[in-house]
Amino acid sequence: MSNAIKSRVIGIDVGVVNTTLAVVDQRGNILATDSFPTTDYPDVNNFLTMLSERIVMIAENNGGFENIRSVGISAPSSNYMTGCIENAGNIPWKGIIPLAAMLRDRIGLAVALGNDAHVTALGEYVYGAAHGMQNFIVASLGHGGLGSCLFCNGTPHLGTNGSAGELGHTCVVDGGRLCNCGSRGCLEAYVVDRGIVQTAKEVMDESTQPSLLRSIEKMTPVAIAKCCEQGDELAIEVFRRTGEIFGLGLANVASIMDPEAIILADIPTEVSQWLIGPTKESFDKNVFHNIKDKVKLVLSELKNSERDVLGAAALAWTVKEYSLFK
Amino acid sequence: MSNAIKSRVIGIDVGVVNTTLAVVDQRGNILATDSFPTTDYPDVNNFLTMLSERIVMIAENNGGFENIRSVGISAPSSNYMTGCIENAGNIPWKGIIPLAAMLRDRIGLAVALGNDAHVTALGEYVYGAAHGMQNFIVASLGHGGLGSCLFCNGTPHLGTNGSAGELGHTCVVDGGRLCNCGSRGCLEAYVVDRGIVQTAKEVMDESTQPSLLRSIEKMTPVAIAKCCEQGDELAIEVFRRTGEIFGLGLANVASIMDPEAIILADIPTEVSQWLIGPTKESFDKNVFHNIKDKVKLVLSELKNSERDVLGAAALAWTVKEYSLFK
Repeated sequence: MSNAIKSRVIGIDVGVVNTTLAVVDQRGNILATDSFPTTDYPDVNNFLTMLSERIVMIAENNGGFENIRSVGISAPSSNYMTGCIENAGNIPWKGIIPLAAMLRDRIGLAVALGNDAHVTALGEYVYGAAHGMQNFIVASLGHGGLGSCLFCNGTPHLGTNGSAGELGHTCVVDGGRLCNCGSRGCLEAYVVDRGIVQTAKEVMDESTQPSLLRSIEKMTPVAIAKCCEQGDELAIEVFRRTGEIFGLGLANVASIMDPEAIILADIPTEVSQWLIGPTKESFDKNVFHNIKDKVKLVLSELKNSERDVLGAAALAWTVKEYSLFK
Repeated sequence: MSNAIKSRVIGIDVGVVNTTLAVVDQRGNILATDSFPTTDYPDVNNFLTMLSERIVMIAENNGGFENIRSVGISAPSSNYMTGCIENAGNIPWKGIIPLAAMLRDRIGLAVALGNDAHVTALGEYVYGAAHGMQNFIVASLGHGGLGSCLFCNGTPHLGTNGSAGELGHTCVVDGGRLCNCGSRGCLEAYVVDRGIVQTAKEVMDESTQPSLLRSIEKMTPVAIAKCCEQGDELAIEVFRRTGEIFGLGLANVASIMDPEAIILADIPTEVSQWLIGPTKESFDKNVFHNIKDKVKLVLSELKNSERDVLGAAALAWTVKEYSLFK
């Protein structure tokens, strides 16, 4: 049996709310999925017990555990180079958690761990819009942060310490808004949910113009986008300003990298309809002229529900097959 | 003879004023150099006739032409991928010049062409401060522009169209100074010679304070630096402002790339003494906190006189041996 080709991997997305796992074959077919609440496990050891049980169960029900080649995990604040979750802010396990090694020791298979942006980029490269591209950038606008990953010459650029990709913390407004990271004017402070909401407040404060924005109970980017659909001028202005700054930040990284494409992931459809136009306009205005019209600025083609586990599956295929029980 | 190891290359720097060529061995020893005025040859064909003659002569006088493996050229606005000088602003040959192929056809050896920043980065990687590094950035502050080159995973990142590295045209001041490229607020508009001179004028205009700056006949960064040496407060302020913006631009690219080092090249010693301190301070303030204290911000270790031909020699070694006359 040890010479047989193992034709499946497990892709796992450790989300802030739920953890999802999937059995995925070589062609990117998702054969089965399962999920459970991450939030039920404040102790990482209990989380790993549940995760291991679910892995064995889903594998046995879909071709057998012996057919699983390896496991890939997408988790916040993860470092592929160390296999550790490092000081994550949004999940309950504090400090440095060697999640890859801990899971490997329990299930006996090779385990690779990557952060959201790295895993998303791999998924786009193997199964999505970036298929066949050597140089591209994925910018992933999650609820909490702006993750990014650069592919250089066909491989993800993780940086010297595995910390590359902090596009969200490049300064785009000198002395601008205070960011969660402690610096001022970071791109992230303008383009993630809380940034867009803050811009909406600023736009409302600056004018006395009537607006549907003023009657929104819980302000979110999607709620603002719904006002745009009604032709609300202030709501449209919110995304114009957001796109202006987003386009500038993307232009800066494009001028440095000369990518074939920038792929924007994790933007709700309602929002992208209003955000992408102003973003492209600002991108074209700011990117170095030699590169203008050469960089494709596109939305991810993968379904939101599949992107994370497919990316994690792609990550699983990057590691050498290994089994404690061979 | 065709199986013998050829132990030497020719490194050529096509400068705006002079063209320099050198015979270089595998260890980076410069065995001989020669140079002639670029400006004497407004027609590129005449330039190539002179260059070919000089190559044959220096090769024959230093171990023989048959011992030359290949040729590397550093020239402004050059694209390694196409082997062409593309619309250079500072040299007389207009449009697209396939310089690598033109020289290859004359001398019968493999010829590689790269732009200043790419070649400088290769030189630092093979012979200089970046030796052994997989991920680093070279920022080269020439008189006319700010070139840059990123090394990712041990190879230069040239981008999809060979246009990567336009760090000088990332926007660091929204709506700021008009740059030669037509955009506003580009890093280059603040940190190259003309930018520093413009800042000096601004600093003088904003105050009535006596200053040695006011009596400089021909304002240059070196002239300003000499005023700093006399303790001139306004002159010191010029480099403080320049460093503040330079550090921000470098921090942005470092946050994205997580490099092991940023190597600053082509800065006159007089200037670097006053510019590096404020640049480092601003870099530390602006770079993403995970990376702070991990990125080395250092000056090139190669002598100015040798950097370009050594880099061009390193470029020559990257191409496959090839001879029309084998």
